[in-house]
Amino acid sequence: MILDNFSVVLVEPVYEGNVGSVARVMKNLGFSKLVLINPPKLDKEARARSMHGRSIMENAVILKSFGELSKRFDFVVGTTAVVGNDKNYLRTPVLPERLSRTLAVKGNIALVFGREDRGLENGEIDACDMLVSIPANPEYPTMNVSQSVGILLYELSRDVWRAKAREKRKMQELSGVEKNILMERFSDLANIALDKDFDRMLAKKTFRHVISRSFISSGEASTLIGVIKKACGKALGRKRGKPA
Amino acid sequence: MILDNFSVVLVEPVYEGNVGSVARVMKNLGFSKLVLINPPKLDKEARARSMHGRSIMENAVILKSFGELSKRFDFVVGTTAVVGNDKNYLRTPVLPERLSRTLAVKGNIALVFGREDRGLENGEIDACDMLVSIPANPEYPTMNVSQSVGILLYELSRDVWRAKAREKRKMQELSGVEKNILMERFSDLANIALDKDFDRMLAKKTFRHVISRSFISSGEASTLIGVIKKACGKALGRKRGKPA
Repeated sequence: MILDNFSVVLVEPVYEGNVGSVARVMKNLGFSKLVLINPPKLDKEARARSMHGRSIMENAVILKSFGELSKRFDFVVGTTAVVGNDKNYLRTPVLPERLSRTLAVKGNIALVFGREDRGLENGEIDACDMLVSIPANPEYPTMNVSQSVGILLYELSRDVWRAKAREKRKMQELSGVEKNILMERFSDLANIALDKDFDRMLAKKTFRHVISRSFISSGEASTLIGVIKKACGKALGRKRGKPA
Repeated sequence: MILDNFSVVLVEPVYEGNVGSVARVMKNLGFSKLVLINPPKLDKEARARSMHGRSIMENAVILKSFGELSKRFDFVVGTTAVVGNDKNYLRTPVLPERLSRTLAVKGNIALVFGREDRGLENGEIDACDMLVSIPANPEYPTMNVSQSVGILLYELSRDVWRAKAREKRKMQELSGVEKNILMERFSDLANIALDKDFDRMLAKKTFRHVISRSFISSGEASTLIGVIKKACGKALGRKRGKPA
């Protein structure tokens, strides 16, 4: 996914504050191209909400009509809170995670968000190559526009930032060797603490499963190894009749 | 995932507008329990932004200190934009999608979001059972609090709403029979249009792959079947020397 392929397009936003919030979350998630169709005056409120995304807002491309999008973009994706029905199958939206699979393509892609009060008009929806809809509570699916932008951009960028976060975390992840040491130390503890083979086996199996599910870090593992070793030492001392 | 198990906890929010935005996105994604620790006065701005989530805000539980959380919740999840390092492995956060797997448990779960300006304090982070962090641009990972709430709740509720959306869409999905009809009609078209067997085979294979990737609906398929059938008719007419 190349984040720079995407532009966020706001169609006739009414509230300047929302434009600021959109610019901020774009910066948070690594997108920089903002297009505004007939925006309101962007003043104090917009600047306050944009925070470190202010330059994105200030460099936004301003267009006068929705029709200009088709000339500027290879692929236009519309967003909608309304799920199509049988009679209107042209408006069947895809789910956000399908969007990210579909859009792993080259070219300029516009993610188009409608007006706060009434979304996209019928003609605008018809002009989109594809529609996407965030699964939400059918009682009240209409999100604030900056929330919709945030969730879609999160979905599109998650693999990029997740990979970066993983790189950073990799160093901390438990290696196989460390995991085995932890299991062996716990095994010692179970052998000391429990008498029956079945109970020991059950305890070890349980511990292995719990640890495996916990995504334990290297540091956490060595802390646990330390405490278990010491507990074993004390328990053995006691068993041999030494004072605890 | 039982959405009612979750409470959203805002620790000393500074801006009333953010509380309103949080209430709104909670309603959008089907959560209803809001806890506010030392909130500001919730006035016009909060009400305006809460929209249909207003009753969530008005029914929020107000607490005076972070310490009260451990008495009220079985599991306290903190949120942070800061990724821990080796020296501070107790603060290694999990990714949102791991959170949703981990939290498919019983009990009352608090999702705790820190102050807009400085997040959670060290002591508060230490009191959490688990930390979660949204993968974001390391240059500027600090999101607006309502954005963080929106993305985490989206991650937690997506399976619930996706299942509901799928039920609704199932009726529209292409059945195997319809798909075969579409493929046969396209096959006719390819046989008419192309002369070489290899080209025909390639065209059919390509069409099958494209259609399979497109998640085509039943309505869309019958539209395509219609046009292909008519195109075949015209092409055959022309081949037989009739006027096109």
